[in-house]
Amino acid sequence: MPSEHEFVQGKQQALFNLQAAERNNKVDQKILPLLHLINASEDYYTTSSCAGRIVLLELPELGDKQRATFVGKWHRTVEFLDISTAAKLATKGYLWLLAQSPIFHVSSCNLPRADALLKCAFAAGFKHSGLKSTGNNVIVELCSTERLDAPLGKDGRLLCDENYLHLLVSIANQVIERSTIKLEHLYRELTCFLHPHEK
Amino acid sequence: MPSEHEFVQGKQQALFNLQAAERNNKVDQKILPLLHLINASEDYYTTSSCAGRIVLLELPELGDKQRATFVGKWHRTVEFLDISTAAKLATKGYLWLLAQSPIFHVSSCNLPRADALLKCAFAAGFKHSGLKSTGNNVIVELCSTERLDAPLGKDGRLLCDENYLHLLVSIANQVIERSTIKLEHLYRELTCFLHPHEK
Repeated sequence: MPSEHEFVQGKQQALFNLQAAERNNKVDQKILPLLHLINASEDYYTTSSCAGRIVLLELPELGDKQRATFVGKWHRTVEFLDISTAAKLATKGYLWLLAQSPIFHVSSCNLPRADALLKCAFAAGFKHSGLKSTGNNVIVELCSTERLDAPLGKDGRLLCDENYLHLLVSIANQVIERSTIKLEHLYRELTCFLHPHEK
Repeated sequence: MPSEHEFVQGKQQALFNLQAAERNNKVDQKILPLLHLINASEDYYTTSSCAGRIVLLELPELGDKQRATFVGKWHRTVEFLDISTAAKLATKGYLWLLAQSPIFHVSSCNLPRADALLKCAFAAGFKHSGLKSTGNNVIVELCSTERLDAPLGKDGRLLCDENYLHLLVSIANQVIERSTIKLEHLYRELTCFLHPHEK
């Protein structure tokens, strides 16, 4: 577990980074209330987060994320044209369309509070959550379950037809829409958890 | 953390369940050496596991796993015909083809040992691992990253063409093949971790 001094220092740095990111419009507006709610607690601070996103990614090989290239990235629902236009930029390897639900990394002052936050995340439907580290830095990953991981083509050529791409776009958008609802669930659960005596 | 008595009792029950599953051929042969390696340690026991699988699933709505219906399930690589034949059994909702990499749940005698096992899993490339519980039952989930989550069609009708389905089958099989390699990595890492003084 971190010493109190380590935790407070880590939090100061994390809040400084978050303020800089906010000034540069690098934080999704949808999750700012959640980040502020968590950071207002003495026991936690957020280190990284994503509200959910749709991504076009080129991978030379399955799972080779280190050599992945982003072809497009949207923190919102997309139009068919967003995807079909961006897909033309693909050149080599497998082109994937991913839709990813929200993810947060939260540093906790100690293990019992980390465990309590984990239970709160499960209750909000963030079923893929877990503790990633319990040493000097106690990190809880809050992660929801909705996702799409579908290949679109290979070496710059689409291997799916237009009808099917419409289905994928519709499902990717459903992931984003459900992510927004899940964020509201998490906000409610976290409010009850962090402020149990307020109405 | 569990008391020593609770941990030993839990382990006896888990080993009894595993033996029954082995007798009924309910455990994938590929992961038996790994399960035996983990269970031979005094500090851990396995509670559930999957070596990786390919699944055809019908979901009434995105993420509604509770109302999901299995249309097909294979703990091996598949042929195109396996998928196209099974897909004909679909009737209602979204039909998904999933390929899932290995997952293990391991109960640990205490938290420092759980954290050490988690680091070992990360080193073996099981990057989606995490602690799921730190209370009376300390549970580590070991989980790899390769996956496919692609919709095939809706309400009993395929919305992708044959060429594209061939691509999906090929990628699903790559997930299974890489899962086998990942299991070998994990076996090696776990052997070094549990028996550091053996050559």
